[in-house]
Amino acid sequence: MVIESKTKTRVIGVDIDMETTTVAIVDIRGDIIARDSFRTVDYQNVSDFIASLAERIIILAETNGGFETIRSVGISCASANFFTGCIENAANMPWKGIIPLAAMLRDRLGLAVALANDAHVSGLGEHTYGSAHGMKDFIVLSLGHGGLGSCVFSGGQLHLGYHGFAGEVGHTCVEPGGRLCGCGHRGCLEEYTTAKGMALTAHELLATSDAPSVLRSAAEITPALLAEACEQGDEIAIEVLRISGEYLGLGLANYASLINPEAIILTGDIRQTGHWMIDPLCKSFEEHVFHNIRNNVRLIISILNDADRSVLGASALAWEVKEYSLFK
Amino acid sequence: MVIESKTKTRVIGVDIDMETTTVAIVDIRGDIIARDSFRTVDYQNVSDFIASLAERIIILAETNGGFETIRSVGISCASANFFTGCIENAANMPWKGIIPLAAMLRDRLGLAVALANDAHVSGLGEHTYGSAHGMKDFIVLSLGHGGLGSCVFSGGQLHLGYHGFAGEVGHTCVEPGGRLCGCGHRGCLEEYTTAKGMALTAHELLATSDAPSVLRSAAEITPALLAEACEQGDEIAIEVLRISGEYLGLGLANYASLINPEAIILTGDIRQTGHWMIDPLCKSFEEHVFHNIRNNVRLIISILNDADRSVLGASALAWEVKEYSLFK
Repeated sequence: MVIESKTKTRVIGVDIDMETTTVAIVDIRGDIIARDSFRTVDYQNVSDFIASLAERIIILAETNGGFETIRSVGISCASANFFTGCIENAANMPWKGIIPLAAMLRDRLGLAVALANDAHVSGLGEHTYGSAHGMKDFIVLSLGHGGLGSCVFSGGQLHLGYHGFAGEVGHTCVEPGGRLCGCGHRGCLEEYTTAKGMALTAHELLATSDAPSVLRSAAEITPALLAEACEQGDEIAIEVLRISGEYLGLGLANYASLINPEAIILTGDIRQTGHWMIDPLCKSFEEHVFHNIRNNVRLIISILNDADRSVLGASALAWEVKEYSLFK
Repeated sequence: MVIESKTKTRVIGVDIDMETTTVAIVDIRGDIIARDSFRTVDYQNVSDFIASLAERIIILAETNGGFETIRSVGISCASANFFTGCIENAANMPWKGIIPLAAMLRDRLGLAVALANDAHVSGLGEHTYGSAHGMKDFIVLSLGHGGLGSCVFSGGQLHLGYHGFAGEVGHTCVEPGGRLCGCGHRGCLEEYTTAKGMALTAHELLATSDAPSVLRSAAEITPALLAEACEQGDEIAIEVLRISGEYLGLGLANYASLINPEAIILTGDIRQTGHWMIDPLCKSFEEHVFHNIRNNVRLIISILNDADRSVLGASALAWEVKEYSLFK
């Protein structure tokens, strides 16, 4: 028995963030038809979460053209493994251990479900709809609050790696013996370049300097606050973003020397820091990258906004999976 | 017009090393039928070199089954670019600038000729005939006297990179502000892990220590000498190989965190240093690699010997190119 699929012209993209889960109906052209979101953190039990997610997908589909028009579902989530369909030991999610999220949602909906980690899905979004459209060999970097993810495309294909964990640039070492990372290692790139890393650098500089700084009285030091302080000539803030940019330039230069990408697409918090971080990043990158590709790798700020990239990437993932049928 | 090709059952693999050029006839099963070699350094003029190489290929083929049985030619050479067919600014070759070697040899022989850099060809050899046979996602590392090359396979395909320069692990930075490399950067991995790097480390340790060591009276400090001294309990030699192994372990851990390979195949001088370098390498690798793949990436010493890997890899490259005909 074969189910007629000509009417299945749309897919569901799901972005599960530690705070918020976003669901979107996306058509074949990449247009977002409708979207809904709810709080991830309200669900300590993963079965309750899946029940709520399935219900919201069905309601969204029924009120926007019908559930029967939906072909499949793609999910973006931190620590998700494409090969197993599981979320594996996610550090920042309410659900611990190995969670077979794809199978759980598939059984609820009767639709094919694929999932992949947020950095890989972000890359699919850039390749299908964003700044990497038409490229074959490129890197997408995702700069988040606490984490630094990435993915590599080789010959037009996402490089997942043997276990599905490729792209962990945040845990490459750029400062041997340096800051202790949550992963247990020292000197990881993300300890110097994420929002959390920038705040650490700021506190170190503030403690060893008498220079006046608006950062001294700030409740939280964020990339946006740092950029704002830079605009006002705050020397500590300028130094923080210079240091972060230099470390990121070094880490990306090492990455590019290995991969020789056409471009590196920069996404996430890097937009907020503006040229105060990007200028030292570019300078450091060109100083460290292998000489034969110096000035030949494009560093590009993504044209997609962060919310759209994740659900669009998840929708691109959905189109990749085979249609599901109980009767095949 | 189509030339009958059923009889073209063999290819030529060529390995151009800074000292020696090796030519081999290889059949479809990877058996080396015959081989010849001559001194690269005798030819300061590249046209003379090509004339001699073509003549030797023709003689070798004619005395081993006939030139008409040869389908195509693959060449391994440092600084060779697969996309352009040129040797580009090779640091250690007699010929400077951009040399269109593939086209020059093709015009002499009337056969299709492909070339690629030695590290990429080495990877092809491992994949087709060696320790990476059957693998899809892996890294091959080539540890030479002055250089450290590598290549990445993704999904069973060699990742060349956008300009053909992927895999420059020797020029990733492992010691910011460290030793000055020939490339102009500081702290490059190859400054600490090649034969040359090991000798530098030895001289640094000898200068700051009073410990007795056979290295003090050595005309040249080689990996083989270091391993021999280690066997005799020479503390300086043991420390040199420990330091080299730790740097290489760190560099490969960063690489593996990005690529998530099934295995890393180690080739070249690493055989000579034995467990004195490999043990600290493995320890450092597991200490630095991304935690989700710790103890899950195989570090393998290649089963191929260095001479065979290059010509076999070059022969695998030869099978990849389309047959050449003046009449198509």
